[in-house]
Amino acid sequence: MNYELKNIPERTLKPRQTGFTMVMDKGLSPREVEDFLAVGSEYVDVVKLGWATSYVTPNLKDKLNIYKQAGIPTYFGGTLFEAFIIRGQFEDYRRVLDKFDMSYAEVSDGSLEMNHEEKCQYIRTLSKQVTVLSEVGSKDDQKIIPPYKWITLMQAELDAGAWKVIGEAREGGNVGLFRSTGEVRSGLVEEILTKIPFEKIIWEAPQKAQQVWFIKLLGSNVNLGNIAPNEVIPLETIRLGLRGDTFSDFLSMNGK
Amino acid sequence: MNYELKNIPERTLKPRQTGFTMVMDKGLSPREVEDFLAVGSEYVDVVKLGWATSYVTPNLKDKLNIYKQAGIPTYFGGTLFEAFIIRGQFEDYRRVLDKFDMSYAEVSDGSLEMNHEEKCQYIRTLSKQVTVLSEVGSKDDQKIIPPYKWITLMQAELDAGAWKVIGEAREGGNVGLFRSTGEVRSGLVEEILTKIPFEKIIWEAPQKAQQVWFIKLLGSNVNLGNIAPNEVIPLETIRLGLRGDTFSDFLSMNGK
Amino acid sequence: MNYELKNIPERTLKPRQTGFTMVMDKGLSPREVEDFLAVGSEYVDVVKLGWATSYVTPNLKDKLNIYKQAGIPTYFGGTLFEAFIIRGQFEDYRRVLDKFDMSYAEVSDGSLEMNHEEKCQYIRTLSKQVTVLSEVGSKDDQKIIPPYKWITLMQAELDAGAWKVIGEAREGGNVGLFRSTGEVRSGLVEEILTKIPFEKIIWEAPQKAQQVWFIKLLGSNVNLGNIAPNEVIPLETIRLGLRGDTFSDFLSMNGK
Repeated sequence: MNYELKNIPERTLKPRQTGFTMVMDKGLSPREVEDFLAVGSEYVDVVKLGWATSYVTPNLKDKLNIYKQAGIPTYFGGTLFEAFIIRGQFEDYRRVLDKFDMSYAEVSDGSLEMNHEEKCQYIRTLSKQVTVLSEVGSKDDQKIIPPYKWITLMQAELDAGAWKVIGEAREGGNVGLFRSTGEVRSGLVEEILTKIPFEKIIWEAPQKAQQVWFIKLLGSNVNLGNIAPNEVIPLETIRLGLRGDTFSDFLSMNGK
Repeated sequence: MNYELKNIPERTLKPRQTGFTMVMDKGLSPREVEDFLAVGSEYVDVVKLGWATSYVTPNLKDKLNIYKQAGIPTYFGGTLFEAFIIRGQFEDYRRVLDKFDMSYAEVSDGSLEMNHEEKCQYIRTLSKQVTVLSEVGSKDDQKIIPPYKWITLMQAELDAGAWKVIGEAREGGNVGLFRSTGEVRSGLVEEILTKIPFEKIIWEAPQKAQQVWFIKLLGSNVNLGNIAPNEVIPLETIRLGLRGDTFSDFLSMNGK
Repeated sequence: MNYELKNIPERTLKPRQTGFTMVMDKGLSPREVEDFLAVGSEYVDVVKLGWATSYVTPNLKDKLNIYKQAGIPTYFGGTLFEAFIIRGQFEDYRRVLDKFDMSYAEVSDGSLEMNHEEKCQYIRTLSKQVTVLSEVGSKDDQKIIPPYKWITLMQAELDAGAWKVIGEAREGGNVGLFRSTGEVRSGLVEEILTKIPFEKIIWEAPQKAQQVWFIKLLGSNVNLGNIAPNEVIPLETIRLGLRGDTFSDFLSMNGK
């Protein structure tokens, strides 16, 4: 840190299991990745190339190399996995992961209908090849999954070999964990946490108010995802109680 | 493309008459233009320097040169044309186009009152000097133009020499084609298309939901404008059915 | 300017007392600062490193140097001052200002309760070390300060040695001067101006509609703050009547 402040909440260090920040890159150029990492590399644990943006992104290999040299793992968004599945191209997908030397992959079913046992089978197969993140929740704001179902799905996916499960919110933060207004489905989150371990979940929380909500409820070291590259520094200050929103939340925890 | 996916809708290639993407640059630095083109140059057909930003932008010639070397034509926003007109400086405007070696220009009347025959006369005059884009629709959200009037205006401007006509939405996407909430005036769009050829219209659609709406209605190769530089890659995925929003829309069209 | 337009409102020049633009940098990388200054340096008077982002920003000295070499003063956001105060570390704060060779500082009480005489004492002390900007208004949208109170507070802070006072709005533009919808508390602004000199106030106005509102009411050379780096060029056009929003507002003032 650039100077000393007392009573700052302790943050986990890399490689983090909690306090984890997943960033969504939706089409940065290689030099923009360098710019982002010049400020964010200490704070970012993994970068998702959003949905199927990797299909149309020029200079993809250059970009992936920049992340790799900074020691930041990357993965293709779940919608790309789904785009291969719906076309019957699962084996092609596995070859793409190898071609680009990916060590992580996401398995999701946000944009299509998939039998849950089939989804778990994909998790089982891919987890022999890469570290799997699996995502629960629909991108369709009309599909409301009740809490007990979220828990069953998450547990089954972890049992099938997912490293962590992701709670869906999209880039906009208006589906899945959130109502269409962006408000958190707080009862859902609390019920999930009665059964699924805290460190096993990454909560997608692209909007500031959502990040604040999770940090107030679950502390500085909650795992958050779908963070925009230019929100990594702001998020870190929210985690530390150094932005107005959480300014008073961590002072007493430290005995002040 | 970086890997192969089956049943991807066919996209037009440059120089495009349809499937055209017009980007709004509202003050990028020369190096930011390079960054944007490093990912966007294949997908961008023309760049508008928004409204009169060119008046206050330093390094304007450098910036225009970077676009030129990438083979991307640029033009000054219509509000600049109007700023010259309201000051009685039309001839000065023509000299500015020459000074900066512009090959496109926009004629609009979104911020002032102008007799339509006068507007068409400007289109006639300028189309001898450059390729003219003309814009229909007011920036004033209180001025609602009925559909038959949009059609009459558009047809007269095409007849006067406009290469394409633009449907107004502003940077915010909340006037002209859209209600103040950002919702598309869908009846208006459908009625326009009964009379004006699809390839002659560029629809300003800065918000993602608006882009999705046009692509669902009119297909991958609809002409869209006022796209932010960092939304070019996301837009391309929406056109290809590779983002959640249009994931299912193009699969059947390809016989799957 | 890149070309000549008649009847453009006159803008103040640096060093400005009015017509002042304060930008909020919430975590730019050094190269992003260069990009921003390549277009913004003429138009930006001072840059705030938002709240306590300076605590977690890598390469802070490099970044401050880039601003310094462009002749743009910088200061740490008021929340950082408050973070030191609430921890009883005021003397440490003064040493941090020296360590980073800061010539400006902000004194605020937006996130904590502070006796106003105590706040004025901090202003008195710090104004012997640096140029002080003081901020009035809470970050808590439940705390509504009545107009007469704003005036008393502002006057006392100027008397204590503040160079200018800032009207609070946050990054979002939804507290203090603004209702939670972002709408300006216009009666408040007008009443403040009956007592506090125009040039002594910087109005935080991060949203475009808010900038437009202040410029329509108070003219091109109103002092505005919390402007995003990529909104500096757009703001300059609004000040000059060269964007749709203020297109007609300055023409008559110049006798046309």
